[in-house]
Amino acid sequence: LADVICEPGELKRFSREIFRKLGLSDEYAEIVGEVLIATDLRGISSHGVARIPIYAKRIKMGLINPKPKVKTLKKNTTSALLDADNGMGQIASYQAMELCIKKAKEHGMGSVGVTNSNHFGINAFYSMMASKENLIGMAFTNASPLMVPFGGSDKLLGSNPLSIAIPAGNEPDLVVDMATSVTARGKIEIAARKGEKIPEGWALDSEGKATVDPHKALSGALLPVGGPKGYGLAIFVDIVSGIMTGSNFGKDCGSLFGDMERPQNIGHFFMAINIENFMEIKEFKDRMDCMIQNIKNSKKAVGFERIYMPGEIEYDKNMELLEKGIMVNEKVVNQLNELAENLGIRDRLSN
Amino acid sequence: LADVICEPGELKRFSREIFRKLGLSDEYAEIVGEVLIATDLRGISSHGVARIPIYAKRIKMGLINPKPKVKTLKKNTTSALLDADNGMGQIASYQAMELCIKKAKEHGMGSVGVTNSNHFGINAFYSMMASKENLIGMAFTNASPLMVPFGGSDKLLGSNPLSIAIPAGNEPDLVVDMATSVTARGKIEIAARKGEKIPEGWALDSEGKATVDPHKALSGALLPVGGPKGYGLAIFVDIVSGIMTGSNFGKDCGSLFGDMERPQNIGHFFMAINIENFMEIKEFKDRMDCMIQNIKNSKKAVGFERIYMPGEIEYDKNMELLEKGIMVNEKVVNQLNELAENLGIRDRLSN
Repeated sequence: LADVICEPGELKRFSREIFRKLGLSDEYAEIVGEVLIATDLRGISSHGVARIPIYAKRIKMGLINPKPKVKTLKKNTTSALLDADNGMGQIASYQAMELCIKKAKEHGMGSVGVTNSNHFGINAFYSMMASKENLIGMAFTNASPLMVPFGGSDKLLGSNPLSIAIPAGNEPDLVVDMATSVTARGKIEIAARKGEKIPEGWALDSEGKATVDPHKALSGALLPVGGPKGYGLAIFVDIVSGIMTGSNFGKDCGSLFGDMERPQNIGHFFMAINIENFMEIKEFKDRMDCMIQNIKNSKKAVGFERIYMPGEIEYDKNMELLEKGIMVNEKVVNQLNELAENLGIRDRLSN
Repeated sequence: LADVICEPGELKRFSREIFRKLGLSDEYAEIVGEVLIATDLRGISSHGVARIPIYAKRIKMGLINPKPKVKTLKKNTTSALLDADNGMGQIASYQAMELCIKKAKEHGMGSVGVTNSNHFGINAFYSMMASKENLIGMAFTNASPLMVPFGGSDKLLGSNPLSIAIPAGNEPDLVVDMATSVTARGKIEIAARKGEKIPEGWALDSEGKATVDPHKALSGALLPVGGPKGYGLAIFVDIVSGIMTGSNFGKDCGSLFGDMERPQNIGHFFMAINIENFMEIKEFKDRMDCMIQNIKNSKKAVGFERIYMPGEIEYDKNMELLEKGIMVNEKVVNQLNELAENLGIRDRLSN
């Protein structure tokens, strides 16, 4: 077996079939499939179909509820709080952003929290639901503890990512999607496998000392981006996602991979803002295009061939892969085909 | 003359008197005085009364309107857009956040943009107006171009700061207030005066090359914090503050110190979110205190004696200076006393 090139529609159907067999309703299996394939199309293969095996494992172990009844715990003109009923994070999150969009269109703004939830994939999927509707969209989630507070050495914060998506005109929409850590743990794992050092400032060892040794970093902790700045943002994300929704926060957030005895009970937070209440969308988009062109046509720094807008690399990748297909890693293919066999699905991923 | 210790109330009255003589109404002079003294009390002396001389200069030159009529250009259930009428940024911003608070209390959320404005002081003043009312407050402003896009070497972005303030219970409220650049230009100026090198990653020289020479950095540009991360946040701040409000954005933002031929025409953006729509404020604050204590009592990193929460250093400073008084730098004292004399004010700052 080698890496497999998958037509996006087929990969989505395959994913959907797996989640159906795992007990999800047609509607929910469709949502999860859509989020995963959109993620692979943006080139974020770490968070796409490669995550299906761990999701399946948690569902089978009873740690994720395959048949959640998403409940509205609170609602108000502009806000709502949803209980994900320990289902896959994608399900309640999709509904939460749909609700934000509706509220923002009707009342100017919308904010919806989600509690009792699990890993939801990439933040940008949800913020972009809003930007496609000509709104500013934001998505936040807390996550299992991997990062220290600024000045600390205990892992009390997740990499707590945030995304902001803003519509442009002829240019691709602007999409910020960032962890509040300096780097992803995955990059330290890659350095460890290659036997390379990691840059200063990425991580601490288990004794709270700065390290450039990836092995020591893996048994230590990630550092927040920009010291007190990333630290402040990570706390903010934890507050709106975890504290304010009544979910776990800080060190208590369950890990997708690490905690196989309990649900994650993490939380998410979504917002949408109606641009039309400030400026006509046509004028806004013209101004966005103007800013984007100003930046893209400006002088490059030494060592750079091109200036990218936030989200542009992922936009280009999406366009490329829609045509060429999604390349699924050999190891992931094996896991997915094995899962399909165990679930009694006939389809297989193959060249 | 030496540094002068000023009782905060007296310093505020002195400031207010200057702005009255410069033509501001009693109400507006009071607002500006309040913002400036609150800033000095938080220990941010670069943005407190030390800025009075440049504000006064711009007012006298006709670049800032001392008698603005703040107009509501647009309004809606949750949003509004205010025209600052080229007045001091503090005036319309204060009103904008008051409006956000009112909307958030009534409808759950509020967002108000300000256009045709000038430097407004520190973001935290406005976000904290909301946190004092048990809301989450946010404040954004664009600023004169000092920073490059990630990968670029033209100054197309300001240090575009953002602030988020969140109420806690027995613990001090949590206040994030950060520029989206790695560091402030002021820190590079200090290094230049001391003849010290600056750390790698702070700045580029005028040819777009990384530099550790503060003099080359001063004729070059600041870098965004965390590369693409700070870059993405800076653009977001520019979009909501500048693009969406109809103000200048990017390279066109006027500089408080640099552009003495035209008004700044920068913009600001404020938001407030009502926590009570998600969780009772008592429970929320208990959970905030729990998080804060978890972090503060945790193990320190090597080289750190104490872990601070975002905004804690400024909170402590405020408590200290309320008692001990504000220490105003000798050079600033001279400028302020000279200004008072020119304006025919009898009061002087003196020990």
